[in-house]
Amino acid sequence: MRIDRRRLERSIEELGRIGETPRGGLTRLALTDEDKRGRDWMVARMREARLRVTVDQMGNIFGERPGQPGLPPVMMGSHGDSVPTGGKYDGQLGVLCGLEAIGSLDDHGVTTRHPVTLAIFTNEEGARFQPAMIASGVMAGKIALEDAYNARDRDGIRLVDALERIGYLGPEPCLPRPFRAYLELHIEQGPRLEEEGLSVGVVEGIVAISWSRLTITGVQDHAGPTPMRIRHDALVAAAEVVAGARRIAREIGGDLVTTVGSLTVAPNIVNAIPGKVTLSIDMRDPKDETLDRALPMLDRVVREACKREGVSYELEHYWRVPYTPFDREVVAAVERAAKASGARYRRMLSGAGHDAQYMAALGPAAMVFVPSRGGRSHCEEEFTPMDDIEVGANTLFLAALELAGRV
Amino acid sequence: MRIDRRRLERSIEELGRIGETPRGGLTRLALTDEDKRGRDWMVARMREARLRVTVDQMGNIFGERPGQPGLPPVMMGSHGDSVPTGGKYDGQLGVLCGLEAIGSLDDHGVTTRHPVTLAIFTNEEGARFQPAMIASGVMAGKIALEDAYNARDRDGIRLVDALERIGYLGPEPCLPRPFRAYLELHIEQGPRLEEEGLSVGVVEGIVAISWSRLTITGVQDHAGPTPMRIRHDALVAAAEVVAGARRIAREIGGDLVTTVGSLTVAPNIVNAIPGKVTLSIDMRDPKDETLDRALPMLDRVVREACKREGVSYELEHYWRVPYTPFDREVVAAVERAAKASGARYRRMLSGAGHDAQYMAALGPAAMVFVPSRGGRSHCEEEFTPMDDIEVGANTLFLAALELAGRV
Repeated sequence: MRIDRRRLERSIEELGRIGETPRGGLTRLALTDEDKRGRDWMVARMREARLRVTVDQMGNIFGERPGQPGLPPVMMGSHGDSVPTGGKYDGQLGVLCGLEAIGSLDDHGVTTRHPVTLAIFTNEEGARFQPAMIASGVMAGKIALEDAYNARDRDGIRLVDALERIGYLGPEPCLPRPFRAYLELHIEQGPRLEEEGLSVGVVEGIVAISWSRLTITGVQDHAGPTPMRIRHDALVAAAEVVAGARRIAREIGGDLVTTVGSLTVAPNIVNAIPGKVTLSIDMRDPKDETLDRALPMLDRVVREACKREGVSYELEHYWRVPYTPFDREVVAAVERAAKASGARYRRMLSGAGHDAQYMAALGPAAMVFVPSRGGRSHCEEEFTPMDDIEVGANTLFLAALELAGRV
Repeated sequence: MRIDRRRLERSIEELGRIGETPRGGLTRLALTDEDKRGRDWMVARMREARLRVTVDQMGNIFGERPGQPGLPPVMMGSHGDSVPTGGKYDGQLGVLCGLEAIGSLDDHGVTTRHPVTLAIFTNEEGARFQPAMIASGVMAGKIALEDAYNARDRDGIRLVDALERIGYLGPEPCLPRPFRAYLELHIEQGPRLEEEGLSVGVVEGIVAISWSRLTITGVQDHAGPTPMRIRHDALVAAAEVVAGARRIAREIGGDLVTTVGSLTVAPNIVNAIPGKVTLSIDMRDPKDETLDRALPMLDRVVREACKREGVSYELEHYWRVPYTPFDREVVAAVERAAKASGARYRRMLSGAGHDAQYMAALGPAAMVFVPSRGGRSHCEEEFTPMDDIEVGANTLFLAALELAGRV
């Protein structure tokens, strides 16, 4: 049995037009009008497939295809939101391959023992509301519903108000739900599969992630008449931190990655010495101990940079997700499905966080990766060849079928 | 003869309330609603003083007190716009001291040979529209009217449309006008007068200024699965440029100041490697030759930083104002007025650009400085003690009176 490549391709094109950028990427930030239109499109498709659709208090959408009564579902899912000027594959592809797998069960008249559920999670990216994966985090009991509701975007809009505005503040409680297995197909977002000429990654776990926020307060002053000797420039200190974060990755080496992705200067005009800079530091490694080592190094980098410039600072390590191993049995099912799909594949870790990370805390989970051209994602150039998508979708389909059990 | 300290103090308070920030600073960006209200207030005061008010094509406001027919005026002026979260003295104080000087001529029933004109220039700060001093620049023939009209703010609004919106797109041509002398009182914006316990700076000239704009284009990618070895991070290169700009000031030493005041990251989210960074470099020195030496050093810093990170860039040195010496005779008149006012004073250079810089290209000009507490300006903490303001205003008044000639 195979999925319908044509239908899947059409779905990717159709959903990809909602929030499409002029250069062929995607801007569909969580809970914006574009996100609403994307959700409406997906819900319509779920209803066409006669799934029972429910929406929970975090706006997570579930569409269930029935199995035998009382059995927990095999859940397939991902997210529909994107980063600004992101791509058409991140998140969306996992949802559409899940939808396609369910459609293929119908095509082949398959009845499964376990129900099969498609899940679409809210605000996975963390681009609009922080932290990332906020809605699966609430579901897994790792983030309090109230804290999630009070998360604010840059304009001060609360998540709960944004949910209500687009009509996706659902009635279902956002609580742990039992499942037979959770499966998520996703683009790799790294270069490895492409470099090795593979179509599928059988994902065994997700690296540990740490997010920090640094606010540096210097002395805002005029760029002209203020002699260098009396300056306390928040941006000069921040620049040292950016260089220092890069240096930590170089010194520790291995798989550690460090990124300053966000940096904002105030007042941010040509002729004023920056009085305030806020920046983020993202660090990831397969081993929790590496982050345990990197974080104090970051503390030192910040302390020394700010001391040298005579500026004050506040550094918060506000989000930490430990290394998440996936379920051995589910990983093995994915591997069998990859083989049965004729995929060239490898076992690997995910360098990105995914909703699967929180779902793994609730039950057996694993992921299927497909390649990212040039390793690129979170950008308009994000691309996965349709041949690889087809093999990945078949892997997801066959793994779900095995885990759900054919009646 | 002396100015009226009480009346001046009241003016400073009243105008300072228009665009006042919660922390007692000022946000009155050029051609905003606040700027319009500030202008309306000043124009009302000029009309009360029976000045003949005209507005030119760049929104510059002139109020003339008559003298003998056919003689060019002594012009006193400054600007009414501020930087974001700036202070209540920068610009505004020069306008109000000029207004006060004219009021004092009336108080004492003085008739002058030369007319006396108060000038208020548009968009001096360059915080909303670039470059700074755009309107005196057009008047001096250094900036084409069309280019100034097409300058856009961050929201893409053109200067000419903003002028029209607030009703200050005047009918008078913005052309060089003859004047007997141009005098501008301004806060020092540096620490020198305060450090030396002086009330007045007799300004002999303005340092040379260079503004550059750097756009770095790296490869936007996901902060997780993208190994360090394949990254091209625009912000890492930008951080090196920030450090490099600081290093240039240290290496050349003397009075050179270098500032990266504005830096903007795209897409600016925690988990994306920055694909694009735009930043400004402001460099100033009393000697043109120092900037001639610093600019190629900056070119090299940028080239090497971007090469190391494997990112491309565009660097424009888009604005340069040479060292501007003021007129010896007018400077001498200011010095005599400072003595007559009982000021402790010194001769000095201005480290900041001022409209006086462009006016000096059209005729004899000079400036009067008053101290800035802690050397601070372009911030809410900007402050000048009223005792110093009084001595500075008397210096301006007596210098204008001498240059205009009492009948």
